[in-house]
Order: sequence, then C-alpha cells, then structure tokens
Amino acid sequence: MIDEQTEALVRRLKSIEGHVRGVQRMLEEDAYCIDVLRQTLAIRRALEKVDALVLERHLSTCVTNAIRSPNEGEREQAITEILEIFAATRSVSEK
Amino acid sequence: MIDEQTEALVRRLKSIEGHVRGVQRMLEEDAYCIDVLRQTLAIRRALEKVDALVLERHLSTCVTNAIRSPNEGEREQAITEILEIFAATRSVSEK
Amino acid sequence: MIDEQTEALVRRLKSIEGHVRGVQRMLEEDAYCIDVLRQTLAIRRALEKVDALVLERHLSTCVTNAIRSPNEGEREQAITEILEIFAATRSVSEK
Amino acid sequence: MIDEQTEALVRRLKSIEGHVRGVQRMLEEDAYCIDVLRQTLAIRRALEKVDALVLERHLSTCVTNAIRSPNEGEREQAITEILEIFAATRSVSEK
Repeated sequence: MIDEQTEALVRRLKSIEGHVRGVQRMLEEDAYCIDVLRQTLAIRRALEKVDALVLERHLSTCVTNAIRSPNEGEREQAITEILEIFAATRSVSEK
Repeated sequence: MIDEQTEALVRRLKSIEGHVRGVQRMLEEDAYCIDVLRQTLAIRRALEKVDALVLERHLSTCVTNAIRSPNEGEREQAITEILEIFAATRSVSEK
Repeated sequence: MIDEQTEALVRRLKSIEGHVRGVQRMLEEDAYCIDVLRQTLAIRRALEKVDALVLERHLSTCVTNAIRSPNEGEREQAITEILEIFAATRSVSEK
Repeated sequence: MIDEQTEALVRRLKSIEGHVRGVQRMLEEDAYCIDVLRQTLAIRRALEKVDALVLERHLSTCVTNAIRSPNEGEREQAITEILEIFAATRSVSEK
C-alpha cells in the first residue's frame, strides 16, 4: 500500500509522461519549434514541482532522522546529499 | 515521412518517457529520495538536450528566414520568441 | 560617447556592484545565512536581466547582420554563439 | 573578529565585485556582446559557488540546531527556508 503523498507524486509523473508523449506528436506533426519549446519548458516546470515535493518529504523524514541521530556520519552524509542536489540544479553549467 | 532529425528527437523523447515511468516505479517501491532526485535531474538534463537541438534547428530555419525576410515584423517576432525562451529558462525565479 | 542603452546597462551593473558590497557587509556582520542567500539570489536575478538586455541587443544587431550577410560562415558562428550561451545557462549541470 | 570561513567568502565577493566593474568597462568599450555574456555567466557561476558555501555552513549550523531543538516550530521553519531557496533557484520561471 503506498501512502497518499506517494500516490500524488506518481499521478504528477503520469501526467508528465503523457505530456512527453504529446511533444512527440507535436514533433511528428512538424509543430512550430517555439511551441515545442514552450511545452518542454512546461514539462521541466512540472518536474521541478515533483523535485520540490520529494525534497520536502526528504527533509522532514530522512534528513531529520539523520541530524537527530548520534551518528555524526549520518548527519554529514545527509548534508552532503542536499548540497549535491543543490549544486546539480546550479543554473550556470561549468565551462 | 518525418526527417531523420525529427526521428532522433522523437527517440530521445521516448527514452525520456520511459525514464519518467522508471521514476514512478522508484516512488512506488519507496526508493531513497535522493536517488529519485538524481533521476529527475537526469530527465531534466535529457529534456534540456532536446531543447538545445530544437533551438538549433529553429535558429537555422525559421529564424534565418524571418531575419532575411523583408518583413520587419517577422524579424521582430523571431527575436521576441528567442528572448521569451531565454527568459523562461532563467535560473532564478521572480520573488 | 556611449549610447543610452549602454549607459542604462552600466547603471544596472553599478547597482549590482553596490549590492555585492552589501552582501560583504552582511557576512562581516554575521547576518542570518538565509538572508544572505536571498540577497545573492536577487543579485543573480539582476544579472539575468542584464543578460536578457545584452542578448536582445545582440540579436537585433550582430545576429541580424550575420544572418543577412552572404557569408555563410558568419551565420553559422552567430547561431553557434547563441547556442553556447543557451547551453551555458542550462539549469542542470552535467554530472 | 570574523572567522576564516567568512573571510574567504568576503574575498570571493570582492573578486565578484571587481569582475562586475570589469563588465562595466567592457560595455563602455563596446565589447562584443557574446564576450560580455560570457563574463556575466562567469560572475553568476562565482555567485553560485558562494551560495553553495553559505548553504553548507547554514546546514551544518543553524539547520542542525533547529532540527535538534525540541521546538518543532524551529525545525519546520528551517525546512521551509531551505525549500524557499531551492524553489527560488528553480531553473524554469513561472509563466
């Protein structure tokens, strides 16, 4: 049984999946490039919303447990992982 | 008959579609949140590659024709649309 | 004599320069980290506005001339450079 | 007396300040637009590095204390603030 929060996330991803198929059809029907880009940007926005919800859950559960744990290593790993995600969504890629 | 370039873009999007389904399964199987985020970031990277290819084709065809056209309005619209896409992928969202 | 557009861009950059000095002071006065991050994000937003204005001018002048030029190499370079800037502001950095 | 870490951050920001002045001069000397954009992108990269260092310090100090605190409100605020920063650096701005 998956919890409600997870079900909501899966529904968002199913909608994104459908949206990706929609862009495939646009390309096959030779849609105007800017219209295609508007749709891929909308898909990226939807993915970012999923990311924010997943991160929120992660901070409230795994990160909280790790930081409250007497095991210093767990805390450091939790912080390292958050910084990894933050760095990965950096806006300006390395040269 | 769609051209090779479009076929390649559609293949990329089909792979992205499969990748999105994969993340759905990860969530259903209660995968570690950071692993989920790593996958959604990989999907976003793949989408950005599609964007770059679509933009390249757009610049080489529609934008080139619009800028070479005697119709000044076509040039201005082509420039406005490029700026719209550039602004939409701004890295820091408005307050 | 620099034109009005350039003067406006230089004024924006002088304001950004002052904003950067402001963040230096915040750090020296041990301001709350999130407040510091809010200011660096505001600086990045201001820089992106400068980028958009510079790109708009570039598209309307250099890119227009290059695409209208009989020299095919000039057109290709103009397109390559726009794609370089677009790729550099990719939102998700490579692994 | 400011600590070494803060001194290092202030030095980075002084270098960014100088870099911004450099772009002002480029504009005043009518430098090629793409060269200007390359520099503003480099400044944004440098700012993102400052952000990552500030966030790392924040996670290791304020967030750790807030999450370990018996005061549930402190924990929730710490998580909300991290999500605010994460959302603000979203890569695709809202329509």
